[in-house]
Amino acid sequence: MIYTLDNDLTLRARAQSAFPTGVYGHQNSASLSPAHPQFFSRAKGCRLWDTDGNEYIDFMCGYGTNLLGYCHEKVDEAARIQQAIADATTGPSPLMVELAEKFNATSAHADWTLFAKNGTDATTICVMAARAQTKRNTILVADGAYHGATIWCTPGQAGITESDRANQITYNFNDVESLKAAVEQAGDDLAAIIVSPFKHDVFVDQEWPTNEFATTMRKLCDDKGAALILDDVRCAFRFSTGSTWETLGVLPDLCAMSKSVANGYSLSVVTGNDRFRQGAGEIYSTGSFWFSSVSFAASLATFDAIESEGAIAKMETAGTLLRNGLDSLAESYGFKLNQTGPVQMPLVLFEDDPMWEKNNYFCAEAAKRGVYYHPWHNMFVCAAHEESDIAEALERTEGAFKALKQQFGEG
Amino acid sequence: MIYTLDNDLTLRARAQSAFPTGVYGHQNSASLSPAHPQFFSRAKGCRLWDTDGNEYIDFMCGYGTNLLGYCHEKVDEAARIQQAIADATTGPSPLMVELAEKFNATSAHADWTLFAKNGTDATTICVMAARAQTKRNTILVADGAYHGATIWCTPGQAGITESDRANQITYNFNDVESLKAAVEQAGDDLAAIIVSPFKHDVFVDQEWPTNEFATTMRKLCDDKGAALILDDVRCAFRFSTGSTWETLGVLPDLCAMSKSVANGYSLSVVTGNDRFRQGAGEIYSTGSFWFSSVSFAASLATFDAIESEGAIAKMETAGTLLRNGLDSLAESYGFKLNQTGPVQMPLVLFEDDPMWEKNNYFCAEAAKRGVYYHPWHNMFVCAAHEESDIAEALERTEGAFKALKQQFGEG
Repeated sequence: MIYTLDNDLTLRARAQSAFPTGVYGHQNSASLSPAHPQFFSRAKGCRLWDTDGNEYIDFMCGYGTNLLGYCHEKVDEAARIQQAIADATTGPSPLMVELAEKFNATSAHADWTLFAKNGTDATTICVMAARAQTKRNTILVADGAYHGATIWCTPGQAGITESDRANQITYNFNDVESLKAAVEQAGDDLAAIIVSPFKHDVFVDQEWPTNEFATTMRKLCDDKGAALILDDVRCAFRFSTGSTWETLGVLPDLCAMSKSVANGYSLSVVTGNDRFRQGAGEIYSTGSFWFSSVSFAASLATFDAIESEGAIAKMETAGTLLRNGLDSLAESYGFKLNQTGPVQMPLVLFEDDPMWEKNNYFCAEAAKRGVYYHPWHNMFVCAAHEESDIAEALERTEGAFKALKQQFGEG
Repeated sequence: MIYTLDNDLTLRARAQSAFPTGVYGHQNSASLSPAHPQFFSRAKGCRLWDTDGNEYIDFMCGYGTNLLGYCHEKVDEAARIQQAIADATTGPSPLMVELAEKFNATSAHADWTLFAKNGTDATTICVMAARAQTKRNTILVADGAYHGATIWCTPGQAGITESDRANQITYNFNDVESLKAAVEQAGDDLAAIIVSPFKHDVFVDQEWPTNEFATTMRKLCDDKGAALILDDVRCAFRFSTGSTWETLGVLPDLCAMSKSVANGYSLSVVTGNDRFRQGAGEIYSTGSFWFSSVSFAASLATFDAIESEGAIAKMETAGTLLRNGLDSLAESYGFKLNQTGPVQMPLVLFEDDPMWEKNNYFCAEAAKRGVYYHPWHNMFVCAAHEESDIAEALERTEGAFKALKQQFGEG
């Protein structure tokens, strides 16, 4: 069955008028194929339904917010119970303390926690806390890395001024020499180095950090008294419930988490060590909904479910099955894939496809058959991707490879 | 009965360690009296219960997030229904379009809408959209006004650099000459003037804008091709479901709303006119939870309930009863109050109390008797403050005036 998208087109037309230029930000599907629906009506587990009733096995997982499965029973029940008690009030619930203690106990580097709403809030707090603590200004940022979408960090060019990017120096991910050169350039003004757990930039191969890169960064920060800020917004809880670099044995000073930490409920988290406690306490950073307790209840339930369901191992299994299955299918149709990044957050590119033409075509054909892949952004598996779901996804995907072969010939 | 706060003290001690220096941001109660609880266990209607079981009639309303009453049945039901269908997914729900169309239809200036999570997100988007549209940098900000808590606008000094405040010029609220001088100073680089619907700065008398001030600002923006940005984050929906300056007949180009627009569910909103559509479409601004549909469902239900319950009129009634009742009580105990701001968002100060000593004492004594007042921040009434609640609050408050008289003597 090939899907059609009549209702979706009608909604897109309305959105074009209701918003400045349609749906905006990272969920704007204008840069994807017309076969990728813009809107969804329903979600459950690892599946989505669009507004035309088509069902998708989803490998974007809300761009990472879905960790345990959409509409997860235990997380949603905890949220519903708290919703009936209190959410946003004049002061926080004791759950806020309980959850902070949970993060402090779980992350090896964490002596304290701050909660916010956006991943961008969390990375911004890290930068401000580092500057407040060190009384210096310069931040080192990896070239091309995404650390949020507000004035100091948005990857867009519109709406920002030159002075908004003063005090930033770039280095290249996994390039120790460029890192050392940037530290040298910062001189006595180095407040922090911010880094993603792995290079998960759009359009290009993902890179896991080398041990030398991570340990050198740690040492440079120690030598200079600067903060190592880990931007774990996208990766948190997919590798460990601590900071993702714990898997490398390298601890950050400040760590920003969000996306999946409450399985889709709005929450972001900063954890830090005692060397940066004073700076973090000095900055004034707040938000109308930062103290809302439903998200805290959901996050506590997410911690529990990750453990009781073995969620991280399940994602590794599902990701491995997906990776192997895609490679086999590609090979059998004469294509070669370049799959990079960890299996639970894969980027799947085609070899000899510099303009992503094959990949766009392939992802469109997959969407028409009920599998939601992304052609140039890292994808996500969740713990609700059972082995049978991956098998079904691969079965649906075969038709996309077949169509690709008809369009592009053999590899 | 005088309240005690044993559990609250224990939680505060835990919070001191779990967070950098206890609860942070605007909900940090360290600057209030020790009789103000830091934590709350439960909320319903206009009432809060602290962790020691003490009940409060609440006049902070979650610092404005509570408009219709805590745990409002119809809003929460709409949220629960949507929670069971989908919240944060790989693309938005049609509810996002429906809600944007609602804002566009309701606000006289609005041709398009953008949704975000924090009030700060909304004011930041307005500033970025104005800069993108005008290709200019300078923003005029009223001296002492609060427009959010991120790098470009936080009232704190820690964690920011000098260049973060480049391109800002201040003017004084309700001071037409200072406004004209600031516009003159900005010259050809004026991107926007940002203003709150009324002066609701902390510690000082609130001021409703003069007609001359508002219309002059509108004219200056028109003459210069700059954006008039209304920061309606705190006021939205307490005066009108359109922008608050519609009550003056002055329309903004861009308007930021948040707090009460989904009765406590996390949501902020930017509405704008077609002159700024292109700029708003060019900026890249996004967040992990900005497309979550539960908050959209809650906001749609909030619109309905405001109308069906006559919420705005109810807040005016409750606010007027509170104002008159406080004045009468004060007078009968020999004190004189200086109540400023609109009745639904009152600031209550004591005359001859430059260091807020009387007010701090009074608010502490009121808290001990089950009324939560704030000594230096504007307060909020909600539509769940029935006449009987106000009467009960005033009855409880009498003991606070009595205690104040014992402490400070007559007026």
